[in-house]
Amino acid sequence: MKMSETPVTVLGLGDMGTALARALVGAGHRTTVWNRTAAKAEALAAEGARTAATAGAAVAASPLVVVCLLDYDSVRQVLAPLGDALSGRAVVNLTNGTPRQARELAAWAAGHGAQYLDGGIMAVPPMIGTPAAFLLYSGSPAAFTAHRTVLDLFGESHHLGEDPGRAPLYDLALLSAMYGMFSGVLHGYALMRSDGVAAADAAPLMGRWLTAMSGVVDGYARQIDSGDHATGVVSNLAMQSAAFVNFTGSARDQGISPELIAPIGDLMARRVADGHGHEGLSGLVELLGPGRPGGAV
Amino acid sequence: MKMSETPVTVLGLGDMGTALARALVGAGHRTTVWNRTAAKAEALAAEGARTAATAGAAVAASPLVVVCLLDYDSVRQVLAPLGDALSGRAVVNLTNGTPRQARELAAWAAGHGAQYLDGGIMAVPPMIGTPAAFLLYSGSPAAFTAHRTVLDLFGESHHLGEDPGRAPLYDLALLSAMYGMFSGVLHGYALMRSDGVAAADAAPLMGRWLTAMSGVVDGYARQIDSGDHATGVVSNLAMQSAAFVNFTGSARDQGISPELIAPIGDLMARRVADGHGHEGLSGLVELLGPGRPGGAV
Repeated sequence: MKMSETPVTVLGLGDMGTALARALVGAGHRTTVWNRTAAKAEALAAEGARTAATAGAAVAASPLVVVCLLDYDSVRQVLAPLGDALSGRAVVNLTNGTPRQARELAAWAAGHGAQYLDGGIMAVPPMIGTPAAFLLYSGSPAAFTAHRTVLDLFGESHHLGEDPGRAPLYDLALLSAMYGMFSGVLHGYALMRSDGVAAADAAPLMGRWLTAMSGVVDGYARQIDSGDHATGVVSNLAMQSAAFVNFTGSARDQGISPELIAPIGDLMARRVADGHGHEGLSGLVELLGPGRPGGAV
Repeated sequence: MKMSETPVTVLGLGDMGTALARALVGAGHRTTVWNRTAAKAEALAAEGARTAATAGAAVAASPLVVVCLLDYDSVRQVLAPLGDALSGRAVVNLTNGTPRQARELAAWAAGHGAQYLDGGIMAVPPMIGTPAAFLLYSGSPAAFTAHRTVLDLFGESHHLGEDPGRAPLYDLALLSAMYGMFSGVLHGYALMRSDGVAAADAAPLMGRWLTAMSGVVDGYARQIDSGDHATGVVSNLAMQSAAFVNFTGSARDQGISPELIAPIGDLMARRVADGHGHEGLSGLVELLGPGRPGGAV
């Protein structure tokens, strides 16, 4: 270890916490790890991590504390007894949660004198430390600036602003898009399988098509931000909604449940019935909830 | 027109039919067009297409007939009166439909002595004739071989086999994946908007994340084909299902309907409850319908 490198503590050694700790050890940081069940710390100890018997001892060992637990309930259970022991330290919480949970925890941490960063990891554990990984942070700009070099060991770091809710907000939005994509892919594979086609035969075209269509997210963003869902629309909702009967029809013919793709068809039909058939797909966002920022709700 | 180039007829001049006809005219083919309402043919006539007063006259003009109408009901209405006038011609039907509809129409066409290709267009009209477009065909191999040079004018041509239902099957599967992706993107943007974040601010990260995650389709395909959803799983269903409460929770906190992403969460919970929590997401396909080809159902 070079003396200039920040000691770091990692609380939580699931697959992700282990990957994070390993990236720190590999870069020469004095890395202290703690996990509720100690067995998971053993392998890391063999690689050079220091193990702590308690979360309190682990926190005391480093000015930078990375938290990666199952959920916010676990985070509260682990951190609450520590209280002012966090004072003067930076807490980087990479546990999955919601914007509201992040804001509440940030307020609690501030009350105990800690700098707080919330983070979302856009990667699975094997991607940590590779160029494919990126991480979203929000909260204390000072903590981000001070520890960015360490955080970059996990993946490319993006700071989204001082509101600690921003990182989980983006994280959930991006993961929603991913789960939507996976929903559609699974429906597509089920449809093919029902007709005797191996998924692997379709996978190359599937990947190519999704990559091509992912470019549409920029156009949808502009339409959603402007509230103008009609200008420049190539394929309008009336046409798309009419063609959607083929999706439910083919699923029925093949004995496949349409449940993963049906909701967008239902929204299209509602939006057309509401008189917006000339608009594009981005207009469906108006059916999902509150109006656009600054706009009429 | 070079004398060696095949005369082609296009039936149907919606946005897509118009784009197809324009690609043919641009390449120097003698192109005869027909549309139920004649006005749409006028612009193409000015560019060099020949207009036909009836579908029958249009079909009589060319050995290759491209059909691009609103739906199969329209196709049947237009083609049925022609019957044996199709004999000896190749009919390439690019109208959206289901595998069953394609097979029925192919049988009807064969009964009238026509070669039949069904096709799915993986492009929007402005992409026709560009490297971004690809088209899926199935049905008569002879017709595909004979006319491939013409078909390649629309986009990269893929022949998926003799069963005419294959092209619409692939088309629906790929479009399902796309609609799933768009469902997730729209939920994500709605979530961000509800918290005051412009969609455009998130779009670059959204696009990057979706492109990265589209690579997962290969792995899911292998798992689905093998029926082994557990080996090599990085993030298992039990963990993903537990974290999914953040999606519904954040939607509730922000006043957003979760309807576009809820179904995959419901399937995850069902699959975990069925004792498959150690498996990956690909296992959800087992809840959607018939078993894998050759496997136990």
